[in-house]
Amino acid sequence: MSDRFEKGAALIRRLFKRDISNSGLPPDILRHTVEHVFGDVWQGTALAVEERSMITCAVLVALGREHEQRVHFRGARNLGIPREKIEAIIHHVLHYAGWPTGISAARVLAEVWDEMDKEEGK
Amino acid sequence: MSDRFEKGAALIRRLFKRDISNSGLPPDILRHTVEHVFGDVWQGTALAVEERSMITCAVLVALGREHEQRVHFRGARNLGIPREKIEAIIHHVLHYAGWPTGISAARVLAEVWDEMDKEEGK
Amino acid sequence: MSDRFEKGAALIRRLFKRDISNSGLPPDILRHTVEHVFGDVWQGTALAVEERSMITCAVLVALGREHEQRVHFRGARNLGIPREKIEAIIHHVLHYAGWPTGISAARVLAEVWDEMDKEEGK
Amino acid sequence: MSDRFEKGAALIRRLFKRDISNSGLPPDILRHTVEHVFGDVWQGTALAVEERSMITCAVLVALGREHEQRVHFRGARNLGIPREKIEAIIHHVLHYAGWPTGISAARVLAEVWDEMDKEEGK
Amino acid sequence: MSDRFEKGAALIRRLFKRDISNSGLPPDILRHTVEHVFGDVWQGTALAVEERSMITCAVLVALGREHEQRVHFRGARNLGIPREKIEAIIHHVLHYAGWPTGISAARVLAEVWDEMDKEEGK
Amino acid sequence: MSDRFEKGAALIRRLFKRDISNSGLPPDILRHTVEHVFGDVWQGTALAVEERSMITCAVLVALGREHEQRVHFRGARNLGIPREKIEAIIHHVLHYAGWPTGISAARVLAEVWDEMDKEEGK
Repeated sequence: MSDRFEKGAALIRRLFKRDISNSGLPPDILRHTVEHVFGDVWQGTALAVEERSMITCAVLVALGREHEQRVHFRGARNLGIPREKIEAIIHHVLHYAGWPTGISAARVLAEVWDEMDKEEGK
Repeated sequence: MSDRFEKGAALIRRLFKRDISNSGLPPDILRHTVEHVFGDVWQGTALAVEERSMITCAVLVALGREHEQRVHFRGARNLGIPREKIEAIIHHVLHYAGWPTGISAARVLAEVWDEMDKEEGK
Repeated sequence: MSDRFEKGAALIRRLFKRDISNSGLPPDILRHTVEHVFGDVWQGTALAVEERSMITCAVLVALGREHEQRVHFRGARNLGIPREKIEAIIHHVLHYAGWPTGISAARVLAEVWDEMDKEEGK
Repeated sequence: MSDRFEKGAALIRRLFKRDISNSGLPPDILRHTVEHVFGDVWQGTALAVEERSMITCAVLVALGREHEQRVHFRGARNLGIPREKIEAIIHHVLHYAGWPTGISAARVLAEVWDEMDKEEGK
Repeated sequence: MSDRFEKGAALIRRLFKRDISNSGLPPDILRHTVEHVFGDVWQGTALAVEERSMITCAVLVALGREHEQRVHFRGARNLGIPREKIEAIIHHVLHYAGWPTGISAARVLAEVWDEMDKEEGK
Repeated sequence: MSDRFEKGAALIRRLFKRDISNSGLPPDILRHTVEHVFGDVWQGTALAVEERSMITCAVLVALGREHEQRVHFRGARNLGIPREKIEAIIHHVLHYAGWPTGISAARVLAEVWDEMDKEEGK
């Protein structure tokens, strides 16, 4: 395994508290997700990892990708980004991408927060 | 004019160094852009104005809205956000919204930076 | 509560037969949905409320927002817009936004109509 | 030529004051545009032609298709739909599809109206 | 029933191993899906039916239309297109339409393949 | 320079008859475009390069990315894919992504073909 693969896998564990090597993704997509996206792009130093997380959340809201929002809202919380900040991102983005994208994202965020509260015994 | 209209117009001048009251927009759209978007949404304190600028740039890249990118890349520079940071946003976002959105945005960014360099006598 | 909030809440009750104040939306998004979207935009007199409903349905079909279609197809029926007219909108829009948007919207419409038939004891 | 082709060509002349047979479109796309879209879909009686025009404009705004907006805003004016009504559609739709779609569409509408004013000697 | 309707229905049976006449689609949408899309467009000889299937899969991945992916991934397998080829399409397309479109499509493909393996007693 | 960078640059020259090292793209985007997209993804053997070209064209039509269509329609012609086949792709895709995407793409294709005819002295 390459150095970038290692770095990518480590960041994935930090963000999502899990290993994606058994995710069932086709091998090329898995390799590029770990090695290229998380092991190279996300490692760039021009943006802090918290900034990358916020930008990713904003873009997933704008594109209406609810499944991936679920993943990256968890990542944001694991980085310590407060719920109020993600709500403000959703509120901001819906003006640029349309009301329905925001209403859906707010529902996903509430579900993610509840799940994580339970997991953490709150 | 309402207090929110005043606040919105002030933020528009700070971001874009211009007045949009003579923009030719239909009256309701103009009023809501100034009063609601910049005078209310952008005034929210859960995100710094620089964070709102970066998120807006990211979303406009993801949605492929080149005309509005032109406006908000100027806004980002006027807030002091460095070119390297906006390039990193474009590079990050293209992985979530597709290569063509990033290639186009990089071209728009280069044009905006050249224009502003000239305007500022650089 | 502002006058616009009151007007917006009344229109929401008329369209959707429910109150959204306990919807769990973040406070800013809730306030803007009621006060700004339904209390200001939808109150504009240049379009009849039935025209706004039809246009909203058309746009939600085009954007493939199935969750929101569910809400606004109910609204259209509560305004007395016949099923045949909404089917014609879907049929028309799919030529401009692609076949898959229309096939999905037709399925959502059939589900909404069945649910409302049951609720109304038909 | 089929009956549907004739009907479609007549509606195209009514809406856009022109003939598209010399538009340079590939033969299959031309045939389906005239015969299928305007000669069949647009002929459906569940919606008035003015309603189809308004819905088409709304969807083209939502999808950010500026070139086609130019065509259908002309069509709407040729059917006697007033500018105020199209501005209200744009203002309404931007809440569902995002601010940038509305700002761009408002600019296109102003350009179309100016062009047609000149053509009509106003 | 027209000749094109017959041809379209035959192709639908070949691709999807089913009849869509009892699909519950509104009559105009059903008629146009069978007669126009499968009975005319898909019959064009400039592309082989396998090429049309691959192109359709690619576009449905790019547009993030998961329900329709489910239908056309089955169609591709019924035409004998191997899983590796569809995975390569998904991997290719995600670079042009964004990572989330590919991750979702890979999950849908795995589900479709499992279902069909079971149906075929594998 | 890595082996993948070399391979990517060679494929870019074959497809587009040019070198993109002086394209003005930000360094990370340039590197990933050459090394990752053309030097890795496009090198995958599960699809022929002509199939990748056709799929890329189809997706760019569906997403309405006219600037990138211009690039990849040239690439398709340089690979020997006939105009009739690209027209059939556009005709096919517009049914899945909406009429406006196809009308625009047909116009871009005609312009590209004319330009290349001139360049080749036809």
